[in-house]
Amino acid sequence: MDFSLTTNEALALAIFEAYRGSQRVAPNPCVGCVVLDQHGRFLAKGHHEFYGGPHAEVNALNGLTEEQLKEAHVIVTLEPCAHQGKTPSCAKTLANLPIKKVTYGLKDPNPLVAGAGAEILKTAGKEVHLYNPAGYDLDLTQELEEVAEIFLFNFRFKKTFLSLKWAQSLDGKTALLNGESKWITNPLSREYSHFLRSIHDATMVGANTIVEDNPLLNIRMENVDKKSKIVIFDPYGKVLVKEKEFQFTEVHQSENIYYLIDELESKRINPTKQFESILESKVSNIIFLDKTKGFYDPLKINDKLFDKGLKSVLIEGGAKTIQFFLKNCEWQRIYTFIAPIILGQGQSYSEAIVNHSMENKIRLNYSKSFSFGADLLLSGISGNYN
Amino acid sequence: MDFSLTTNEALALAIFEAYRGSQRVAPNPCVGCVVLDQHGRFLAKGHHEFYGGPHAEVNALNGLTEEQLKEAHVIVTLEPCAHQGKTPSCAKTLANLPIKKVTYGLKDPNPLVAGAGAEILKTAGKEVHLYNPAGYDLDLTQELEEVAEIFLFNFRFKKTFLSLKWAQSLDGKTALLNGESKWITNPLSREYSHFLRSIHDATMVGANTIVEDNPLLNIRMENVDKKSKIVIFDPYGKVLVKEKEFQFTEVHQSENIYYLIDELESKRINPTKQFESILESKVSNIIFLDKTKGFYDPLKINDKLFDKGLKSVLIEGGAKTIQFFLKNCEWQRIYTFIAPIILGQGQSYSEAIVNHSMENKIRLNYSKSFSFGADLLLSGISGNYN
Repeated sequence: MDFSLTTNEALALAIFEAYRGSQRVAPNPCVGCVVLDQHGRFLAKGHHEFYGGPHAEVNALNGLTEEQLKEAHVIVTLEPCAHQGKTPSCAKTLANLPIKKVTYGLKDPNPLVAGAGAEILKTAGKEVHLYNPAGYDLDLTQELEEVAEIFLFNFRFKKTFLSLKWAQSLDGKTALLNGESKWITNPLSREYSHFLRSIHDATMVGANTIVEDNPLLNIRMENVDKKSKIVIFDPYGKVLVKEKEFQFTEVHQSENIYYLIDELESKRINPTKQFESILESKVSNIIFLDKTKGFYDPLKINDKLFDKGLKSVLIEGGAKTIQFFLKNCEWQRIYTFIAPIILGQGQSYSEAIVNHSMENKIRLNYSKSFSFGADLLLSGISGNYN
Repeated sequence: MDFSLTTNEALALAIFEAYRGSQRVAPNPCVGCVVLDQHGRFLAKGHHEFYGGPHAEVNALNGLTEEQLKEAHVIVTLEPCAHQGKTPSCAKTLANLPIKKVTYGLKDPNPLVAGAGAEILKTAGKEVHLYNPAGYDLDLTQELEEVAEIFLFNFRFKKTFLSLKWAQSLDGKTALLNGESKWITNPLSREYSHFLRSIHDATMVGANTIVEDNPLLNIRMENVDKKSKIVIFDPYGKVLVKEKEFQFTEVHQSENIYYLIDELESKRINPTKQFESILESKVSNIIFLDKTKGFYDPLKINDKLFDKGLKSVLIEGGAKTIQFFLKNCEWQRIYTFIAPIILGQGQSYSEAIVNHSMENKIRLNYSKSFSFGADLLLSGISGNYN
């Protein structure tokens, strides 16, 4: 019997392992690492657990002896880091061990340092391979991209990763015409929404959602105690002007609440000294919107979110806010929960989108579905940035 | 090592086996049978293969010796038949064998004969059990109902089993506003549509679908050579009057083409002697529609389809025809293919449905999903008749 794993199998395991850090590593990437001994047998695994903590390689190597590591093969989802940051350089750490070979899934996305980690290893006489799916029945490249997608996107485009999330009926409605939407999806789906919040830097909703539903917008999951951030799309300052009336202020610290405000419009509607002073006191948490040809530009909004250090935002609603980003193709991933119900006439996230040809349809790439009881979660990425 | 199967495991296998007859047993039910020896080990399986052919029990028992059958346990998805029909009574056949025990999944749905098969077996000294899921981790009752759902429905309600099938975008659209819909779903999904046609007695579409798409409406599957039937919802006689212009007449025999015709309206629009004579010559394949308070009544249509011997109809479109049955709750199963695309404004099967409360939503019960590449097929039954 052969107890060895192929590189592909080890990499699949490393990807699985990498996801375990998804709630706490941001803005670092999720990374997983698997170590095989000289016979290709499984030795150890590790993942990057939290921002500032040891990298995946270090966690995987921890406790292994030099003897065990002799001629070993280290498989890691992302190129080992070249430079000392919050932790020592992983490439240097690996270079000093008696291992034989390192296979990494993806190059460091920073073009200035990409390949530097590999170079350190090569100089130390190690075999170094960028993952090559040829010869395997399953190509894991997309899985490698996916597990680190927020980090990769941030680096490649200097933009915030925007996820759109909504719950819909089979016929694409997010609420009845009268606004009723409790509940479209089941408790299992709604529970998973908190996990989605936890893997993003912030949750965004439109002002009307705050006014109508008065949501907490925090992460309600056992064992997750994250100071979550929120963004309120509030051009007219409707929420900002009476913030204290809403529940979300009880669970979010003031510095974690961001507002998208149209200064002109909001002052026109709230022309008081008091509102002026609110604007001033919150200035570091306000993102000022400006109009281009009468419309807000989601691309500019993205830039400003990125400038504020928000690397990923989960946009949860309402339907109009979702639609704003959707129709302007300013989104990277969609999470839609589909309930097996038909609502008929109602509110939708796509009613303002007009296509004259099937060629212009919005497509979710690499889509996957998951079951939550009878509900489905369909998720896919946009093809616009690939 | 124990080589035996539990009754639940044998029944699951029998259900799986039963499905193998789904394209050819109508109007009989899909039935599967598994035989376990006196030690509970798997001996044989069989299913009802085609209408008029040997029943599942006979196919399973075929070739087994009396020695093998001594103290055997026969597990069958539906109560063994009591009376001689096109084939001998299965209950009597089983009664004459040295088997010990018969477990059947569901009672014969005909209240006049339900239990008669079991009675014959009991009189012959066999242990007879109606399936009881207690004690098993998986209750197979719903699966038993599902595999024979058309037959059970026909018997219980004396009505035609109506399935609605459509392809939609994620946002519930079946076409763009301009009618373009080629293609929403992928070739794998479209291929499976032919399987769906093959498990129904007939395929129904509205007249506009014929006029606009000129479809063949036949079953294009390898190894399936079925004289399929079609129903055209053609109240104004638009298709009937110029039938020969359409492709479907090349692949369907005249006696397999049914029309839903509003006699008054169709004669008003086609006031010719020639049309009158078409109506007369086709009379046995025409289902005359009449209006109640200005509307066609889908319940009455169902009755008339049943009178014509159509035990199951797959309603494929267009969106208006689907909607007619959907909003009147005159449907038993929905098959919807969901493509991971967003179309925005377009045609929908639910735009004429108005709900003022979430309580009135249309719900698909026991829904399941299947993947066809990136497309999903979601299917579920109506709760209205359970």
